[in-house]
Amino acid sequence: MAKKRNIIVGQSGGPTAVINSSLAGVYKNAIERGFDKVYGMIHGIQGLLDEQYIDLSTQIHTALDIELLKRTPSAFLGSCRFKLPEIHEDKAIYEKIFEILAKLDIDAFIYIGGNDSMDTIKKLSDYAILTGHNQKFLGVPKTIDNDLALTDHTPGFGSAAKYIGAATKEVIRDAQGLAYKKKQITIMEIMGRNAGWLTGATALAKTEDCDGPDLIYLPEVPFDLDAFMKKVQDLLERKDSIVIAVSEGIKLADGRYVCELGNGADSVDAFGHKQMGGTASYLANYLSAEVGCKTRAVELSTLQRSASHMASRVDIDEAFMVGGAAVKAADEGDTGKMVVIDRLSDDPYMATTGIYDVHRIANEEKLVPRSWMNKDATYVTKDFVDYINPLIQGDYQPIMVNGLPRHLVMTMPGAAGRTRRKKEM
Amino acid sequence: MAKKRNIIVGQSGGPTAVINSSLAGVYKNAIERGFDKVYGMIHGIQGLLDEQYIDLSTQIHTALDIELLKRTPSAFLGSCRFKLPEIHEDKAIYEKIFEILAKLDIDAFIYIGGNDSMDTIKKLSDYAILTGHNQKFLGVPKTIDNDLALTDHTPGFGSAAKYIGAATKEVIRDAQGLAYKKKQITIMEIMGRNAGWLTGATALAKTEDCDGPDLIYLPEVPFDLDAFMKKVQDLLERKDSIVIAVSEGIKLADGRYVCELGNGADSVDAFGHKQMGGTASYLANYLSAEVGCKTRAVELSTLQRSASHMASRVDIDEAFMVGGAAVKAADEGDTGKMVVIDRLSDDPYMATTGIYDVHRIANEEKLVPRSWMNKDATYVTKDFVDYINPLIQGDYQPIMVNGLPRHLVMTMPGAAGRTRRKKEM
Repeated sequence: MAKKRNIIVGQSGGPTAVINSSLAGVYKNAIERGFDKVYGMIHGIQGLLDEQYIDLSTQIHTALDIELLKRTPSAFLGSCRFKLPEIHEDKAIYEKIFEILAKLDIDAFIYIGGNDSMDTIKKLSDYAILTGHNQKFLGVPKTIDNDLALTDHTPGFGSAAKYIGAATKEVIRDAQGLAYKKKQITIMEIMGRNAGWLTGATALAKTEDCDGPDLIYLPEVPFDLDAFMKKVQDLLERKDSIVIAVSEGIKLADGRYVCELGNGADSVDAFGHKQMGGTASYLANYLSAEVGCKTRAVELSTLQRSASHMASRVDIDEAFMVGGAAVKAADEGDTGKMVVIDRLSDDPYMATTGIYDVHRIANEEKLVPRSWMNKDATYVTKDFVDYINPLIQGDYQPIMVNGLPRHLVMTMPGAAGRTRRKKEM
Repeated sequence: MAKKRNIIVGQSGGPTAVINSSLAGVYKNAIERGFDKVYGMIHGIQGLLDEQYIDLSTQIHTALDIELLKRTPSAFLGSCRFKLPEIHEDKAIYEKIFEILAKLDIDAFIYIGGNDSMDTIKKLSDYAILTGHNQKFLGVPKTIDNDLALTDHTPGFGSAAKYIGAATKEVIRDAQGLAYKKKQITIMEIMGRNAGWLTGATALAKTEDCDGPDLIYLPEVPFDLDAFMKKVQDLLERKDSIVIAVSEGIKLADGRYVCELGNGADSVDAFGHKQMGGTASYLANYLSAEVGCKTRAVELSTLQRSASHMASRVDIDEAFMVGGAAVKAADEGDTGKMVVIDRLSDDPYMATTGIYDVHRIANEEKLVPRSWMNKDATYVTKDFVDYINPLIQGDYQPIMVNGLPRHLVMTMPGAAGRTRRKKEM
């Protein structure tokens, strides 16, 4: 009997609306390329270390399941935030992972994630080379933050940007509807610790039928509370309703996060990132006290990363494509690489996949260039919008069941899941 | 020359996703019934008092404009929160209104709004009868809160419920994706000062592919912090990710709002309503301190009332229908009435319009009956869900332009608007 040729795929880091489209791309391509089994790590490398994995053929039965998976937000397999130690720090953990891979006859290991996940791919492929293992390790980019280097943009960003653009239009209209003879200020808080790509995407709302936000503050440039107050006061003389978009990660020149001025959040995740939140609330309270008008804080919160019901077709298709491209690369012998998206043309928009050595990518953050902000860094430029615009095009209508979008969910053999739920109906 | 027979329509109170569908229904029906002109009050009765109105034929040119209007959130004409004084308190304001109506040859006055707007219809129709004016005054129900008496439900509620159901599914999946070997609690805050209809709508997320929220707290029943803690601790023993839905208006038995325990909001609107907010944040901080696990507050904020991109077809169609029915009623001589929706059948769902004397309706709040909550008031029952379910059915796809939903916006003659914006492109 010939040796089995299996593949395993995991998801890592924060959810996106299209991370499962990449999973679908991996699965479909792996089956078509003749891999015997496609395993899924449950909760990424952290779950794998606990031998938590599943044969994906028990989950994906039909072409309709693939379509549902492409429209399912958050990580179908479960995600994790788990940082592998350096190889010299803890060899045992690597030995354990490679034991599990050997037991499952794994030929290729695909990890869908952001900067931290590419660090995992780098370490595992380094270890394999150092120790003479011949599994292939490939990274598939994923993050709403669009902060990965070398790729033109990241899958997940386009859908988040589309949702943010649509939500911004709705928030602006909502605020205008009630503004008559009394001023009101709405502060929208958008995700993005260090990179302002998502906050800048609020500028997409500036269309023929919407003025867009009045001010946009990205985290790349220090936030000046006095200059901000002056801008707001100028605007209040001309307009009844002002809508301002701020990144959750805006900081003062002295390095303090604006959100820390309020409630002093101090929790950190496994990668040492500060947990954000409260920037819009702080500024809304501040303006309310200083200016005296009605203010409202709107946090788009987790909806911006999981709104599959407003996903971009370009984004879902590209996420699927990079998943497939990773399987192809592994099948052809590549390892220690990440698939990237190369933009060939803006208009008409054309893009293809490329592949880069993961050592060139890991832990490098791509920020919004200063030249894509206006002079006083209170808005993004046309170049910024032209860059994002192709990524939000087209729709992938949710498959609606009984009035709500249907998702694909994991069913554990013999446990919770479809069978049980069907009986409940 | 025959006397002109004109109609005027206004929008009042908080925005909804379908208040403009009612406006479209009024406009289309008025034109078809041979009214000469359809005026729109700009920012409701408050704007009318400043002689702010517009001839709607300058805004709605084509059948496509009607379709856009039906898909445009918030008040196209602008809204207001303006309480008319009692007639005996300030006759001058009534005289001014009726002077304007006479000047514009108004035959029928249609006001789209909630409880407070029906109070306006009541007072104006009373004044007309008292003073021998023969204009007709008709109310069209509108509120996401579903708290109007006599009507089976209010236009705007179904779309808000549908958005809340879809967003809840996405929030639950998002939270589950990262929950592995660490507990996390998500508190969703939903609009609803006194009525829990919208918060209860989170139960729609309980479907074949989603467990739904774990706990649901409506404002109709006093909130017990100790009982809440006990429920949460029980759940934490069984689950990694807990999602709890709370109304912004939940109160302790002593009458204090939960949101007041945190930051003590004390602003009130023109009707004396307290401004809410911060309930989820307070509970998330409280649980984080008491239980020690990761917590997150998610406020659906204004998105829940303005998410036209996720509107219910049933709701948009009914909003259109009640607008038309008000015109028909006025045309047939009714006054001092509100159009209502009467449910004829649950399954298949069938509804028609009815009409009630506005004196029977104004300022009466319809709350969720205690029998539609479970024993300890931590969830809603099947009866509750069966009541809402028909109202979220069907979609009204946004008209997408360049990747985002297109809305209809007001263009002022010679001022801002389409012409200017076209040049900006």
